[in-house]
Amino acid sequence: MGRRRQRRRGGDEQAQAAVIEKIAQPVHGLPLYNLLDEDGVQLIHQKSMEVLAEVGIAFMDDPEAVGILQEHGVDVRDETAYFDEATVMEYVNKAPSQFTQIARNPANNVIVGGNHMIFAPVYGPPFYWTAERGRREAKLADFVDMVKLAYSSPYMTHSGGTIVEPTDEPTHTRHLDMVYAHLKYSDKPFMGSVTSANNAADSVAMAEIALGADAIRENPAMISLINISSPRRMDDRMLGALKVYARAKQATIIAPFIVSGAMSPASVAGTLIQANAEALAGIAFAQMVQPGTPVIYGTFQTTIDMKSGAPILGAPESQQTLLLSAQMARHYGLPFRSGGSLASSKIPDAQAAYESANMLQGTVAGRVNFVLHSAGWLEGGLAASPEKFLMDCEMLGMMHTLMKPVDISDEAQAMDSLRTVEPGGHHLGTEHTMRNMRTAFYQAELFDYNSAEQWEAEGKKDAVARAHEKYKNILKAYEPPALDPAVDDALTEFIAKRKTEIEPEF
Amino acid sequence: MGRRRQRRRGGDEQAQAAVIEKIAQPVHGLPLYNLLDEDGVQLIHQKSMEVLAEVGIAFMDDPEAVGILQEHGVDVRDETAYFDEATVMEYVNKAPSQFTQIARNPANNVIVGGNHMIFAPVYGPPFYWTAERGRREAKLADFVDMVKLAYSSPYMTHSGGTIVEPTDEPTHTRHLDMVYAHLKYSDKPFMGSVTSANNAADSVAMAEIALGADAIRENPAMISLINISSPRRMDDRMLGALKVYARAKQATIIAPFIVSGAMSPASVAGTLIQANAEALAGIAFAQMVQPGTPVIYGTFQTTIDMKSGAPILGAPESQQTLLLSAQMARHYGLPFRSGGSLASSKIPDAQAAYESANMLQGTVAGRVNFVLHSAGWLEGGLAASPEKFLMDCEMLGMMHTLMKPVDISDEAQAMDSLRTVEPGGHHLGTEHTMRNMRTAFYQAELFDYNSAEQWEAEGKKDAVARAHEKYKNILKAYEPPALDPAVDDALTEFIAKRKTEIEPEF
Repeated sequence: MGRRRQRRRGGDEQAQAAVIEKIAQPVHGLPLYNLLDEDGVQLIHQKSMEVLAEVGIAFMDDPEAVGILQEHGVDVRDETAYFDEATVMEYVNKAPSQFTQIARNPANNVIVGGNHMIFAPVYGPPFYWTAERGRREAKLADFVDMVKLAYSSPYMTHSGGTIVEPTDEPTHTRHLDMVYAHLKYSDKPFMGSVTSANNAADSVAMAEIALGADAIRENPAMISLINISSPRRMDDRMLGALKVYARAKQATIIAPFIVSGAMSPASVAGTLIQANAEALAGIAFAQMVQPGTPVIYGTFQTTIDMKSGAPILGAPESQQTLLLSAQMARHYGLPFRSGGSLASSKIPDAQAAYESANMLQGTVAGRVNFVLHSAGWLEGGLAASPEKFLMDCEMLGMMHTLMKPVDISDEAQAMDSLRTVEPGGHHLGTEHTMRNMRTAFYQAELFDYNSAEQWEAEGKKDAVARAHEKYKNILKAYEPPALDPAVDDALTEFIAKRKTEIEPEF
Repeated sequence: MGRRRQRRRGGDEQAQAAVIEKIAQPVHGLPLYNLLDEDGVQLIHQKSMEVLAEVGIAFMDDPEAVGILQEHGVDVRDETAYFDEATVMEYVNKAPSQFTQIARNPANNVIVGGNHMIFAPVYGPPFYWTAERGRREAKLADFVDMVKLAYSSPYMTHSGGTIVEPTDEPTHTRHLDMVYAHLKYSDKPFMGSVTSANNAADSVAMAEIALGADAIRENPAMISLINISSPRRMDDRMLGALKVYARAKQATIIAPFIVSGAMSPASVAGTLIQANAEALAGIAFAQMVQPGTPVIYGTFQTTIDMKSGAPILGAPESQQTLLLSAQMARHYGLPFRSGGSLASSKIPDAQAAYESANMLQGTVAGRVNFVLHSAGWLEGGLAASPEKFLMDCEMLGMMHTLMKPVDISDEAQAMDSLRTVEPGGHHLGTEHTMRNMRTAFYQAELFDYNSAEQWEAEGKKDAVARAHEKYKNILKAYEPPALDPAVDDALTEFIAKRKTEIEPEF
């Protein structure tokens, strides 16, 4: 913290901001918060098994996938796979409960599973909102800026994937630009492309160049997001990418993306049953492709605005669904992905913050292992914002502290201080306070604690205005992490070659 | 909810808004979230007992209080009371674990304790912030506006106390105006004045006029806030008010107000030990004055900005302290007060919302029985805002939903819907959805879920702008609850008489 303070308060902010503070991967040290008792968990499990056995999951337009399922004893009729409990659980149980994702800087390797948490940026928005320009289509330059912001935040554990869609690059080659940006402008772990088998193969090839073909098969270098098209459907693009990653021993998140009331029943329990069935089917399939391949059990759920049909982010039912899904993932001994700083609001106003905080609090209470969308999200995921990103990072800093185990050691009890301060006196100068003041409490950088008078004198800046200044300063001061020029050349050559080879799809 | 929808969307908002929707007092139906194991609870208890026995609590400038303590076996030297464990616990155990606070409209009576929660407005700010005028000293008219907003919100269970300080009224009589406003403009339960014994006696007299002298001794009509001057000190004003209320069988909250690092040690555990000792001492004293008088175990804690010395609201350590204090209160079988929508930010921006949501989430996780400051708070408690009040009320609505028990009934499982919808289909028109859609998900009023295009077409209003419009509309449409003219006359006569009697203090 000393360095951050100095950076913030020093006059020469640009020169010093390039020192990237390292903070260890957050470890959840609080008791688990389980909403269901064991009977409740069993009930959800059994109902999911009924769904898998009796109504099944469609594996669309991918005869190879159907063949794999059939070879492993799954009954497939009309592209719909009917899993019995013994089969699905046999393969789910082959998935590791914990694994390591490697980064090109080994100091940034992360543990996935158990008490470990990973914060990754927003994923997928086609729009980019800034305080100066408002909302417009996202460009590759915005993507690069967000990679740099994620690299610069001590609270961001991961570089993420499609932080924004670079809409100024051709659809069929932009995955190359995105993977390159993650490898060039950051040295944190990242996510591969999933829009097709070929894009996944390109991602694997680039990870091999940067981290080594053998190394990435020992521990995955990518975690990639395989969304299920709820209800109960996997398409050939996602299946294609999943097969490539599983065969390359790269990790995948198998995650239904559900607007309850539209893509699942209008209830928490019904949604949970469906999402559980979907995730388990995808995970079992991944294990049939490659036993032991690392996977993450995922859930992404929103409620629905009955007026407009729009998804509602940050709703109380979503917080319950998150906690329940986390409990189911723990029941199966699988790493879990959900949560994040999700919001419906179009701008980083109070609504966005309330919504994001609700979900982020649920994320910590649920001990989510992989937190996609942990910062930068706006407008139901249609927009990303650098200001929102930094405000959310401040919250992630708080969450790093919140999840620490309660310290009731002798030093924390502070009985020496309690015995010496007179009634009505103060603890400001006690020996205990002097020993602990620097580390006792989380000290925010972006949030303002000045008096109203001081705050007015400094220009009455709201959180967005401060975040805007801060993100500009971070980008000015940014320096890329060292990258072996030979690796950089090999990556750029690979990209140049692939850009001549890949045919656009129409 | 139907009525609210109609009100919002109907053209004649003013005419319909006067229909105040009634929502039952929220009941917490989720599992308890305990951060300490039984050994941890015992450790904190024992260390608090050491503080009480060995360093004691000062009872300042109140010889009667000292006499009461001595009569009940407490060792008092130099105004400092040294409590042994047997004595303090004997009297703490006389406090009821649950009681009812009555309102002048019995439909608004509330249960205090157990799984029941009460949301009350912000308490104490001398400033009032609105979007149109910014920050200025609060006036009685602002106080009345806030009483009306609290009366009009279905999610606000309580009318509160000193919602803002009416600085345009004389210090020595403004308590009369405040109690009158609660009785006149609302029919929800309220809090009495605590700034002196006389103010407390006036509050009791007015409650007797409005609710009946016998009735308020059967069940308290007021819950009043007795703050301990941490560290370890009660002054004659608070003791005076406490004695009046205890003798009149009116409920009190005994609550240390602590900035950790200044008024307690710079640690969560040290703060908890001190706060626990202070609350128990105050509660034991109240029971010595009147055995069985209803009391609430309270904690209000912030961390400190090591740069400016300012309190930090919404910090992660405060969330931990809240959860730990809640667990201690449950250990003693006492109703608990803490939490709320607390914030350091000077304006209702994203910072304020993040901070408030953090504390409100902790409030629900901690199952706080009496939530003071549940809406309207800004600037570390120095300012109240009607816009912030309504935004916080939206969050309270969400919390009403969040705390409901998880429903895993047959109907919630929705197996009929899960069995009938095809892969890739949708649940929008299923019988289950039709049966459940109106009640399935919390539908916000103030939060915006429209598309970006629609939101732009409607003027790009942020949450504060929408809240501003809404509060103006609520006040326009406000109609007071019926009040017996004889009661009203008796109250105004009492106030007129007291205003001629009370001497200003200099």
